[in-house]
Amino acid sequence: MSDQEQFVMAEQADRGGAPAVYVVGVGMTQFGKQPDRTPEDLGREAVWAALQDAAIDPRKIEAAYCGHVYQGMAVGQRVMAQVGLAGIPVTNVENVCSSGATAIHGGYLAIRAGECDVVLALGVECLTGRFRGALAPEEGDFEALQGMTMPSIYAMRARRHMETYGTTAEQLARVSVKNKRNASLNPYAQFKKAVTLEEVMASRPIAEPLKLMECSPVSDGAAAVVLMSERAVRALAARKPTRLAAVALLSGTYEPGLTDMAFEPLTWRTAQVAYARAGVGPEDIGFAEVHDCFSSAEVLRVEGLGLVPRGEYPRFVEAGHADIGGKLPINPSGGLLGKGHPLGATGVAQVVELVRQLRGEAGPRQIDGAKAGLAHCRGGKAAGIEGAACTIAILTA
Amino acid sequence: MSDQEQFVMAEQADRGGAPAVYVVGVGMTQFGKQPDRTPEDLGREAVWAALQDAAIDPRKIEAAYCGHVYQGMAVGQRVMAQVGLAGIPVTNVENVCSSGATAIHGGYLAIRAGECDVVLALGVECLTGRFRGALAPEEGDFEALQGMTMPSIYAMRARRHMETYGTTAEQLARVSVKNKRNASLNPYAQFKKAVTLEEVMASRPIAEPLKLMECSPVSDGAAAVVLMSERAVRALAARKPTRLAAVALLSGTYEPGLTDMAFEPLTWRTAQVAYARAGVGPEDIGFAEVHDCFSSAEVLRVEGLGLVPRGEYPRFVEAGHADIGGKLPINPSGGLLGKGHPLGATGVAQVVELVRQLRGEAGPRQIDGAKAGLAHCRGGKAAGIEGAACTIAILTA
Repeated sequence: MSDQEQFVMAEQADRGGAPAVYVVGVGMTQFGKQPDRTPEDLGREAVWAALQDAAIDPRKIEAAYCGHVYQGMAVGQRVMAQVGLAGIPVTNVENVCSSGATAIHGGYLAIRAGECDVVLALGVECLTGRFRGALAPEEGDFEALQGMTMPSIYAMRARRHMETYGTTAEQLARVSVKNKRNASLNPYAQFKKAVTLEEVMASRPIAEPLKLMECSPVSDGAAAVVLMSERAVRALAARKPTRLAAVALLSGTYEPGLTDMAFEPLTWRTAQVAYARAGVGPEDIGFAEVHDCFSSAEVLRVEGLGLVPRGEYPRFVEAGHADIGGKLPINPSGGLLGKGHPLGATGVAQVVELVRQLRGEAGPRQIDGAKAGLAHCRGGKAAGIEGAACTIAILTA
Repeated sequence: MSDQEQFVMAEQADRGGAPAVYVVGVGMTQFGKQPDRTPEDLGREAVWAALQDAAIDPRKIEAAYCGHVYQGMAVGQRVMAQVGLAGIPVTNVENVCSSGATAIHGGYLAIRAGECDVVLALGVECLTGRFRGALAPEEGDFEALQGMTMPSIYAMRARRHMETYGTTAEQLARVSVKNKRNASLNPYAQFKKAVTLEEVMASRPIAEPLKLMECSPVSDGAAAVVLMSERAVRALAARKPTRLAAVALLSGTYEPGLTDMAFEPLTWRTAQVAYARAGVGPEDIGFAEVHDCFSSAEVLRVEGLGLVPRGEYPRFVEAGHADIGGKLPINPSGGLLGKGHPLGATGVAQVVELVRQLRGEAGPRQIDGAKAGLAHCRGGKAAGIEGAACTIAILTA
């Protein structure tokens, strides 16, 4: 670990004294292909659902943070105007696939700073009206022009994991089987049907060893959460507060290149910050929502988080330990592979799932007895660095 | 004032206990037409200048907030990678013309929350490579399609002010004369030449009564500031701390329509929050940088801030009171009309000017003896609400 990393980590440790933060309301729209819906329309539905779940007077909302990538100017304001909350402070944030989680981080800081007691964090994205098939790379992304698109990057990393640890293509495919099975139990998920290992393996090759069913889809959707300070939880008698014990955000350092493509230092470093702030370790985490944009991505995330030793996650999945009834359920919501991936909404929807699980409201996907859950996003690539943004939230019952 | 407004304002008042925040380094690029420069290139120059001005080890920077509108994904991360600061938490924010100020608000909250002690806030925008002539309205902006573009809105508001208060077209034009004269004293400004009243009045009509020289230009540029907590100021022996006494952010409530186009309730409301947080009143403000996107806009801002009674600012300008040597200098930097308006950079550049003035480093534009300065931005329109975002920062020597 470099001096720079040590400095950042020491400085990022929680300093105490700031108010504790709770999630008191959650809501989301159906995720899926909804090309005729606007960000205002989706955002309104998610926000209303979260406000209704929180059962508070909407006028108690003091500020809003809105995460998105492609929705144009002042999206958060446009959504607030639709839900009757025009006039409050609104901040729009973008951190590629971590945009929604960055909105939660913003709301968390506004409460921690003592500026607000009740904050709305939302994420929204309409993609299917904009992209046919896969997302087009940014103009001027010279790496993507050379073929280094997201599927090929995650395919290379899968190949490295296979070479180093003896991981098989079937083990990777089982990540999709698990997540799509979980999604079939989630009414908000894009994919409604469980699939077999054979179906995943027989699906169209995208970038060897990844098949179509191992890639997250193009989706439209929105999600929202209501955050409160501890004193607001008491003053407003919030019915079901879930502690947002920590939110951590880091960007990637300079590209480590091919030194170890089978491991993800950015996820590891962000996790150290999150664990330190929450005062927990990976051994305390009962389940997690992680950024499974590809089947191989889930492997990199879970191992990078230190939840399973390096190289062992594919066998862990094969043994059923990551299933909803297993030792450490991963992506009980269906994850990006099953629930869908409307970029800005994803990080918020992960927290929606954590809250539902920790409250015992997850219905047929309910995990027994988990006391702490973790949500992990990792956003995009940027030329020369290992990733644009990684976010981790830890929630405790 | 509605219940909603009262609630927001009461809740927005500063709650104390959180660390005080200081600006310890400022930097900006030349503003102007620089179509060949990238946001990374401009951002790097501004950040380096701010770091050099702060005279601190760049590795002390713990997080960055980047404001922009049109620069695509992960701009802040791309700039950080260029200045050797990859790896820290980076948050990209967008609030139309208040984007840069919103980045400062983000950094301010990160310090107030105790999460960071040293934060970089920057704003960057490349417009001339993207737009020929005026900025094109957003797709789907049905108001703009009907002719309600920015120049026509500010022309209508000018007309209303003329009707209500007897303001003359010449008085409005004098705002441009003043700001372009100030800009001629600012080496970073887009316009290098003072202009006469006759030249402004003879410039091409844009939307009656506004002429070309009364409209802010399309610009490229970047600006950056280093923020520190009070304890970091001491621990790192910052040479020239300037207190960031308050940052306030509000979005617009539902469009008041034609009830009083000569006044700006959003600016007024945001000012009340800012004054309350800073513990000062308009009478304590010695000078201000305000969002003069049009000559008439400066009138609405200064009167909305309560710095000059309603209806009186045009005569105040005519009397020379808003000049650098006057009672209440407005836009000593040259403002948007003279310095230029690279959207995301504007709010940060305003704070750069405030700091230079309060330190006594403004050279030929130096204002004597001012102890408190105010920076005001107002961003965009959004269908159905009076404005997307208004931000006010108050700095004290």
